[in-house]
Amino acid sequence: MASLQSEPRLASGTLLDRYVATRALSVALVATLSDADATVQPNPDASPAKWHLAHTTWFFETFVLRDHVPGYRAFDDRYAYLFNSYYEAEGARHPRDRRGMLTRPTLEAILAWRAHVDQALIAADLPSEALALIELGINHEQQHQELLLTDILATFAENPLADPVWDHPRAAASPMPGPIGWIEHPGGVVEIGHAGDGFHFDCEGPRHRTLLHPHAIADRPVTNHEWRAFMADGGYTRPELWLADGWAWVRGEGVDAPLYWRRHGDDWLSFALDGLHPIRPGAPVTHISYYEAEAYARWAGARLPTEAEWETAAASADPLAGNQLDAAGPVRPQAQRGTDCQFFGEVWEWSGSAYLPYPGFRAAEGAVGEYNGKFMSGQFVLKGASCATPRGHSRASYRNFFYPHQRWQFTGLRLAKDI
Amino acid sequence: MASLQSEPRLASGTLLDRYVATRALSVALVATLSDADATVQPNPDASPAKWHLAHTTWFFETFVLRDHVPGYRAFDDRYAYLFNSYYEAEGARHPRDRRGMLTRPTLEAILAWRAHVDQALIAADLPSEALALIELGINHEQQHQELLLTDILATFAENPLADPVWDHPRAAASPMPGPIGWIEHPGGVVEIGHAGDGFHFDCEGPRHRTLLHPHAIADRPVTNHEWRAFMADGGYTRPELWLADGWAWVRGEGVDAPLYWRRHGDDWLSFALDGLHPIRPGAPVTHISYYEAEAYARWAGARLPTEAEWETAAASADPLAGNQLDAAGPVRPQAQRGTDCQFFGEVWEWSGSAYLPYPGFRAAEGAVGEYNGKFMSGQFVLKGASCATPRGHSRASYRNFFYPHQRWQFTGLRLAKDI
Amino acid sequence: MASLQSEPRLASGTLLDRYVATRALSVALVATLSDADATVQPNPDASPAKWHLAHTTWFFETFVLRDHVPGYRAFDDRYAYLFNSYYEAEGARHPRDRRGMLTRPTLEAILAWRAHVDQALIAADLPSEALALIELGINHEQQHQELLLTDILATFAENPLADPVWDHPRAAASPMPGPIGWIEHPGGVVEIGHAGDGFHFDCEGPRHRTLLHPHAIADRPVTNHEWRAFMADGGYTRPELWLADGWAWVRGEGVDAPLYWRRHGDDWLSFALDGLHPIRPGAPVTHISYYEAEAYARWAGARLPTEAEWETAAASADPLAGNQLDAAGPVRPQAQRGTDCQFFGEVWEWSGSAYLPYPGFRAAEGAVGEYNGKFMSGQFVLKGASCATPRGHSRASYRNFFYPHQRWQFTGLRLAKDI
Amino acid sequence: MASLQSEPRLASGTLLDRYVATRALSVALVATLSDADATVQPNPDASPAKWHLAHTTWFFETFVLRDHVPGYRAFDDRYAYLFNSYYEAEGARHPRDRRGMLTRPTLEAILAWRAHVDQALIAADLPSEALALIELGINHEQQHQELLLTDILATFAENPLADPVWDHPRAAASPMPGPIGWIEHPGGVVEIGHAGDGFHFDCEGPRHRTLLHPHAIADRPVTNHEWRAFMADGGYTRPELWLADGWAWVRGEGVDAPLYWRRHGDDWLSFALDGLHPIRPGAPVTHISYYEAEAYARWAGARLPTEAEWETAAASADPLAGNQLDAAGPVRPQAQRGTDCQFFGEVWEWSGSAYLPYPGFRAAEGAVGEYNGKFMSGQFVLKGASCATPRGHSRASYRNFFYPHQRWQFTGLRLAKDI
Repeated sequence: MASLQSEPRLASGTLLDRYVATRALSVALVATLSDADATVQPNPDASPAKWHLAHTTWFFETFVLRDHVPGYRAFDDRYAYLFNSYYEAEGARHPRDRRGMLTRPTLEAILAWRAHVDQALIAADLPSEALALIELGINHEQQHQELLLTDILATFAENPLADPVWDHPRAAASPMPGPIGWIEHPGGVVEIGHAGDGFHFDCEGPRHRTLLHPHAIADRPVTNHEWRAFMADGGYTRPELWLADGWAWVRGEGVDAPLYWRRHGDDWLSFALDGLHPIRPGAPVTHISYYEAEAYARWAGARLPTEAEWETAAASADPLAGNQLDAAGPVRPQAQRGTDCQFFGEVWEWSGSAYLPYPGFRAAEGAVGEYNGKFMSGQFVLKGASCATPRGHSRASYRNFFYPHQRWQFTGLRLAKDI
Repeated sequence: MASLQSEPRLASGTLLDRYVATRALSVALVATLSDADATVQPNPDASPAKWHLAHTTWFFETFVLRDHVPGYRAFDDRYAYLFNSYYEAEGARHPRDRRGMLTRPTLEAILAWRAHVDQALIAADLPSEALALIELGINHEQQHQELLLTDILATFAENPLADPVWDHPRAAASPMPGPIGWIEHPGGVVEIGHAGDGFHFDCEGPRHRTLLHPHAIADRPVTNHEWRAFMADGGYTRPELWLADGWAWVRGEGVDAPLYWRRHGDDWLSFALDGLHPIRPGAPVTHISYYEAEAYARWAGARLPTEAEWETAAASADPLAGNQLDAAGPVRPQAQRGTDCQFFGEVWEWSGSAYLPYPGFRAAEGAVGEYNGKFMSGQFVLKGASCATPRGHSRASYRNFFYPHQRWQFTGLRLAKDI
Repeated sequence: MASLQSEPRLASGTLLDRYVATRALSVALVATLSDADATVQPNPDASPAKWHLAHTTWFFETFVLRDHVPGYRAFDDRYAYLFNSYYEAEGARHPRDRRGMLTRPTLEAILAWRAHVDQALIAADLPSEALALIELGINHEQQHQELLLTDILATFAENPLADPVWDHPRAAASPMPGPIGWIEHPGGVVEIGHAGDGFHFDCEGPRHRTLLHPHAIADRPVTNHEWRAFMADGGYTRPELWLADGWAWVRGEGVDAPLYWRRHGDDWLSFALDGLHPIRPGAPVTHISYYEAEAYARWAGARLPTEAEWETAAASADPLAGNQLDAAGPVRPQAQRGTDCQFFGEVWEWSGSAYLPYPGFRAAEGAVGEYNGKFMSGQFVLKGASCATPRGHSRASYRNFFYPHQRWQFTGLRLAKDI
Repeated sequence: MASLQSEPRLASGTLLDRYVATRALSVALVATLSDADATVQPNPDASPAKWHLAHTTWFFETFVLRDHVPGYRAFDDRYAYLFNSYYEAEGARHPRDRRGMLTRPTLEAILAWRAHVDQALIAADLPSEALALIELGINHEQQHQELLLTDILATFAENPLADPVWDHPRAAASPMPGPIGWIEHPGGVVEIGHAGDGFHFDCEGPRHRTLLHPHAIADRPVTNHEWRAFMADGGYTRPELWLADGWAWVRGEGVDAPLYWRRHGDDWLSFALDGLHPIRPGAPVTHISYYEAEAYARWAGARLPTEAEWETAAASADPLAGNQLDAAGPVRPQAQRGTDCQFFGEVWEWSGSAYLPYPGFRAAEGAVGEYNGKFMSGQFVLKGASCATPRGHSRASYRNFFYPHQRWQFTGLRLAKDI
């Protein structure tokens, strides 16, 4: 048996340090929210802020405390029904599209539950297999921190009052990046997928060989300035630029700009966590769908990179660099800094690869095995990390995934081309 | 010019007294609600509690202060867009089905707005035509008090936790009423519609003659006990008892009991503002649709009364009697008290009459003229008053109206038959 | 026992004559249709032509031959499932919205079935109660003849080729009617509902007294020319003219003209059974919803007549006059003939009365009792007869009924006003 | 200039021969259909038989005759609007989901149009680039021949009468195949994609190298007998076997068997072009979705092959062998013949690969370039050929594609596994 308090200190801190910091960050992210702000569900893809706080707590209470601490009694037996997300093996659950109806438990009650679980978990004697679940739970909660922010943004974006979520000082006027530079690769067999002992999600492995074709990949994402050129050239009105499903989406939804862009006279503003502001030309375009990314690439005479191309190019990039989420940090894509080949931070980048199992992939047994594998149809992989990704959570092998029409995440694109 | 403070005292109190009491009651009704409770919208027919508080305030600020107090400046110019309900003449408005997205303004901010408007209105010099608008506004707010309660109930009913809205002491064990007594009427020309000087909504007039046919009307509503006999006799499974639209509704929605009834083993509970409790056999059945009421009547070998029959029978009943909403009162249908012919209180009663204009009806000019007339298609009239109707708000000529499938109001039925 | 061949000759011909003529007219109406034309279902409210031919045959085979001719064997046992419309008592049936999938049986097969049933029925010894069912079946089939035409029109209107259903010679250029004349009524108790021994549907009775208020009713329907003035005055863009449900319908469906009107440069054409032609100014406007009729009346400073007002005014009109359906006749509203007070023919006229039971109404027992009563919610009564109503089928007491948004029938309006 | 009549004879016959045979086969396939059978659209994914006949004709008339034969006049100018499928560059078109409304032109008229175009095309002097378009048109029509059959099947399956489309003699009682044999591959870099000069669709190329991992692939598809074991083991009721989207589909649609299986007492029948028959245990299971295929593979402890694995294994198989569509042939999966490794015929086999562009893929310019590339999102690749695929139309590099929920095609599966 072990306890979080006796775990060895690693370079990234002890597991206890990281547990405590992660749990604290979630709470810090909702500091400016009212109970009501934390309750509503802006659309069926998003969840209430309160729900994220509760669900991540349910994860620790269920898979660590309930399963590994004899005699532990659930804080409230009724919460399992309310805050299970999609684990079929864990039984019936509250319908996803009614999550915004749960005015009770209150934000305060959920914070109390969080404190209770944290206290119990820190004090517990745990078998060593529970430590792996805590590691998984930390990473799971980090994922939800990003969703927490994107869902809060979606909530505030619904309100015509356009209140900001918070009033961090704005970024200083920032430089416009130069023209895209191209990183060439001659092709050949490479290895991708997670290597080494560090934590990774099941879908990142097994590490395996794959064959690249000769190509070049851009050294930075596409900017708002470039996106406006696409718009000015009729990008949203020319069917030949679009996938058939994408064109149907554009027409059906009346799409004519990235999500959260709002017309303001002849110009556009965009709504972000810090409120409604002019478009910043040098910043990466964000809140775009796969369809938009793919159409832009076609318009630009390029294509999206495959996940293997992206991962190979990013293999030596520093996943801790770039504009990502820190306890204190602003959460908004910043203008690009000219010449560096930043692969992490700012925006998730749509790859041209479908989210499918790697060769040899097998889902884990049991409820935790429902983690990633069951979403492997119809979605595309996104690489990198966004301004809302907790720093330290990402790595080159990370596979984020969304449906091609979704764009309430901080999603952008980077170009690639055959050579 | 005049002011609320100089208005004469009537039997029902001065207009100022009534304004103050009405405004205070709305606030009292939300006393146990959190900001979040007051924010969510349980379904598109219902509105958030906060929205009711705001909309009724918008009514006074717009039609009294803005229109009749020179120099009055709106508390917040943005609120008109958010809290106009359906007055086309007042311009664009927030989509009805997105009202639950408005976490801001907070409940507290709306209460501050209410106080500001109340203060301004009480202090204002007003032309006499404004006094009629205040009277209309008071009655308008009383309507919304009932909706406030039914929508709060709908909100809490969404939550599996089944928290009560409040914990009033339960009614004492109450007697089961005796068999229905029948009040006979020989038929002939009668007058219905509002008479006299008192306040009434436009749709209640003009008073006019109409011809009744010989009939009898029950001396009390149908009880839960009687409803269970209908259920036990296959009421929800026999198409021959139902209107075609009603049967489609039963099948499409899977209806097998009144709204808010929940199976509990072999029995049923019902959810009300005071929580989840056993069905009280002697109380009037409530939360039923027109379709259900009509099917029950057919099953019982009877029919629903017309609005003229009901109004004639109720003409001498006391509209201040019965279980209605008081500042302090419990809000739940109580068991019937045997022998009195209570026509007001407990439940609204579905009539068999469509909600259509009375002979000679003309809608008022201007935005206020949108009040009732524009809803005159597809709905049925309900008569009486429910346990959630503010005492003093109803009268025999009152015409409430809902679509035949709606049942989130306190709706019940009383039988009638030809003789 | 009796047989159709031994029935006495009435003024309107023997029952046999009328049976034969009715059955023949249905077949004549589809003479220009291909099997495919007769198969498709243009929308869920409409049925395929073939289905009407089959369903009316099923009615006779089921309620007359099966129920009253010992030993009669159904032509094809599988047809009952396919061609029952809505008689719950007759068991399961093919879903209404999939009727257009039935390419088999073919039109030819259904015509063969018709001939078989006709032969059997004409030859049968029948108890006298069966004769009443034949009378009902004839009237039932006449109703379906009108639907047959409106549904064929809806089918052909779907096709961009705009083929005419038939090429009857067009009406000669026809006069524009003069200004509306007003028929005044001083009010008082009158009798309405069907009187006498003749055939009538259950919902037309019982005959009963009702009280009219003083009013005037127009001596002719509203014309296309008048409708265009409404359109030119912004009729479809001014919410204050519309019921709330109507305005939602206009906006939701993008309605800006009667159904089947098509823009043609700066002008309009309308599509009818004889193809696409210029609007005829003197003809009654048709294919309008209740919402449109009601908005027009408000715009015109008038209202729709109640069914009692209409019936009283039409009591002495000749229901056999006017432009109605004959074996040979054109089926299209014609221009009005100046001064006569035609109440029958041309278009069904929306009344302002909801379709509800008359005092004392009771539905018949058994499957046939499902005939009319179960549709008594949410619909409005239409009076008169249209150019597609078989001549001889209508009378002043006739109550046609549709939902307020429906307009694929030949529906128009006549104004009324209080005096 | 050239003409079809002067084209050289290849092994597969002259282009003229093949044009004539292809055009004739389409007509032969509808020989037993009535005009109505050929008109209705059973669901929005499918098209009417008549539409397929017309659309393939429009393709030749537009891209060959209009574009390459000076002075050619369209048979009917209105057909382009009706029968363009999805070529945005060719202008507006009739809405896809209303194709079943087109009772005109009749089947006969479309056959006349076909004859006219055939005659013109055979007689024409054509530039050599037009010959490539004819080749494309032939292959395009072959694709539509398969759709023609699957859509006819869908149409007849809608009809409770369960008429067969045709009455070919049934297959003789056929042997049950033995256990699956496994074809092993050690992995390594291979080439896939179309090679050589023969016709292929743009998406089949470019031929390129890819890396296989060691694996084994089954020597035959999964049979009905095996599928029933999956069903008996609760296959459709165990969420752990399913992708999340698949499980939502199973629950939402109430899926509990392959499409066209119908309960018959305790057993199942299946509906096919030759009518309703008992399940044939030895035949490949068909009409299953990707979700079902994927769930079955998980249940069987295997997985679906990638398209590269499949193509590599099938490289030396004879694409002309197997049960495929001939002018005379039965169209229904047959029982498996024990030991041969048939890769073509019977059923299309779901691969586990998303339908995405091959490295270096570029869509062709112009309207014809809309051919395949624009469908590259959200779909999965299917390999092989079915019993409804025209013999000669398929090859190992062929990439068929459908959405994961679609199953009205002849779709089955073959297992693979890692070794």
